Amino acid sequence: MNKPKIVILGAGYGGIMTTVKLQKMISVNDANITLVNKHDYHYQTTWLHENAAGNLHHDNTRVPIKDVVNFSKVNFVQDTVESIKPDDNKVLLKNGGEIDYDYLVVGLGFEAATFGIPGLIENAFTIDSINTARLIREHIEYNFAMYNNDPEKKQERLNIVVGGGGFTGIEFVGELANRVPELCKEYDIERSKVRIINVEAAPTVLPGFDPQLVEYAMNSLESRGVEFKLGTFLKECHPDKIVVEKDEKREEIPTLTTVWAAGVRANSIVEESGFENNRGKVEVKPDLRAPDYSNVFVVGDCALIMNKETERPYPPTAQIAMQMADIAAHNLKALISGSEETEEFVPEIKGTVASLGDDDAIGVVFGKKLFGWQATVMKKVIDNRWLLKLGGIGLLLKKGKFNIFH
Amino acid sequence: MNKPKIVILGAGYGGIMTTVKLQKMISVNDANITLVNKHDYHYQTTWLHENAAGNLHHDNTRVPIKDVVNFSKVNFVQDTVESIKPDDNKVLLKNGGEIDYDYLVVGLGFEAATFGIPGLIENAFTIDSINTARLIREHIEYNFAMYNNDPEKKQERLNIVVGGGGFTGIEFVGELANRVPELCKEYDIERSKVRIINVEAAPTVLPGFDPQLVEYAMNSLESRGVEFKLGTFLKECHPDKIVVEKDEKREEIPTLTTVWAAGVRANSIVEESGFENNRGKVEVKPDLRAPDYSNVFVVGDCALIMNKETERPYPPTAQIAMQMADIAAHNLKALISGSEETEEFVPEIKGTVASLGDDDAIGVVFGKKLFGWQATVMKKVIDNRWLLKLGGIGLLLKKGKFNIFH
Repeated sequence: MNKPKIVILGAGYGGIMTTVKLQKMISVNDANITLVNKHDYHYQTTWLHENAAGNLHHDNTRVPIKDVVNFSKVNFVQDTVESIKPDDNKVLLKNGGEIDYDYLVVGLGFEAATFGIPGLIENAFTIDSINTARLIREHIEYNFAMYNNDPEKKQERLNIVVGGGGFTGIEFVGELANRVPELCKEYDIERSKVRIINVEAAPTVLPGFDPQLVEYAMNSLESRGVEFKLGTFLKECHPDKIVVEKDEKREEIPTLTTVWAAGVRANSIVEESGFENNRGKVEVKPDLRAPDYSNVFVVGDCALIMNKETERPYPPTAQIAMQMADIAAHNLKALISGSEETEEFVPEIKGTVASLGDDDAIGVVFGKKLFGWQATVMKKVIDNRWLLKLGGIGLLLKKGKFNIFH
Repeated sequence: MNKPKIVILGAGYGGIMTTVKLQKMISVNDANITLVNKHDYHYQTTWLHENAAGNLHHDNTRVPIKDVVNFSKVNFVQDTVESIKPDDNKVLLKNGGEIDYDYLVVGLGFEAATFGIPGLIENAFTIDSINTARLIREHIEYNFAMYNNDPEKKQERLNIVVGGGGFTGIEFVGELANRVPELCKEYDIERSKVRIINVEAAPTVLPGFDPQLVEYAMNSLESRGVEFKLGTFLKECHPDKIVVEKDEKREEIPTLTTVWAAGVRANSIVEESGFENNRGKVEVKPDLRAPDYSNVFVVGDCALIMNKETERPYPPTAQIAMQMADIAAHNLKALISGSEETEEFVPEIKGTVASLGDDDAIGVVFGKKLFGWQATVMKKVIDNRWLLKLGGIGLLLKKGKFNIFH
């Protein structure tokens, strides 16, 4: 009898945790497990804004897959997924290869949603990988380095625009607010010449957060020189400026650095591969399987789960992706052994903390509002918890965040 | 009776050392001393290639003027010299001001000589200030960061061309050879994809050095991946490539990074201000005064001194600039006090050491050939000696190079 083939696509939070769980739960005699990922490392997407600002080295944000996946139990294929053929139980890869599966786990993550805003794809940066995060860091530094070399000083080198006042946008401007004074010192530029501008279409930043915490966050950031343009739409993005609109009035802001952090969607491979989808995401069954293919699990940002209380989808977070991995691994084991029913996924929102730089944060943890030092500590606890779950004490000690006393 | 006004232009090796000497030798009751400099810091030009490669932070290469000049004895004016009016004893400044002098010391340094090569001024970098050095560092890093973000990989991002196999060019490729492996690690690029190409029109690098030392240097650099194109002329420099010619055969090398280190000339202000000059430099009298203005001293790279033995000018070096400052200060004191004859300048070439990165070097010191570890130590001794002369033990301890044991 042939062993069933389990193929996991993507080594983000959902995919790699599914792999790590499976390699412990399933014997090599019972199944072949293959992990496919573009890079030979996993990275913590929720830390990338720190790398992009230049406050944390990206090597702290990534973990070599070989450090957490046992290659004697799991085949690792470094390649980019081109498409999934769920009717044929096949995955096509960029380098021309293809992989058959009996069971598939789709954990292909997100991509930026640019809502058709002219020029955004061509001219704006997005914080979505190690490659783009370190490019943003270098792009900002390069423009600071150029500033004093231009015969005529160009303000667009020192204006940094961040589109979106959601979680990522706010965390990123928080990091920038800490980083910019260092850059000014490095390149002999007055701090007052640099602008950090957050553009948000909604009337407030951090929608969904308690208004008291939002006010705390805005005060903290404004006191460190962040400008907010609320109720303001980004209409056009050019190489050297953006056009925003508020109350039907347009304004141009000269900038060579626009970072778009105002929306994500599921990896478009999911939609293109023909899965039944809801705005690009697979609305999974309670046990995380795709509605139309009972041998395909979807985890992380490609999966849609409705919150029955609010009648809105749960937001795509690392927290939920990790919890999904537990259930996906459990259910795969159940299907293969034929001995158990599949389990239902029940998300448990323990809390959410948004950092405002390295030394301030806001959040809600187990229903309690936190800000300042307490929230900062809790944010680091959350980040460290992932490392502990992924690679145990060894990984935690290597990459953990322990600089909690400022 | 009015006190005589001494004005020193430039805080390079010659200018700042003249100032430091004068403030010790002349009482504030006997003369007004003014130092004019573009920046509020002095920098060690001979260290800039280390900053440009990214191996040494530029703050180690500069010294705040206030740390070595006593502002209760010397007026410091931060401004850029626009022109000198030697017939009117006036200096015009960029911000619109002008300064009168009774005695002038011109220490305005060098600028790149581009010999009319098309595109060089527009597209090549030069290593001539803190601003340009850190820009080169950032430019190289930026292109490495971009490499993995381009949909199609661009080799021109990884080809670094250095024009000129003289002192600066060789020292710079030596630093690059050490830096590139670090950059490859930082940006996930294979070392073998990066090219460091030195283009030199002469049949050998380091003209004037002992052939045995030149061979040692080339072996050291080639073993670390530097390519030499000797007897090769840089004919054109474009934003994304250069054109070189050897034996009437042309070759294009795609590159976004051309660093021109193949020639310097005196600051063109000297020529434009109407001093009698020899290819832009003032051929000074034996006591370092300009031939046509007996109240103007010229020190450093703006001054030309013939070596009577070789019948060629002494090369523009920090060593000679420092020695000139001693004599210029002595002679100014003599003229002001009216009690002494001016002294003649006699250069004393103690030695020359070219670094080949942080851990290798070649040189001749007091007539003895040195290479490898011994030369590396001697290079650092030379660098440290300047700091000691400029700012004493305090400055030496702060900015000195003590990492001599590898």
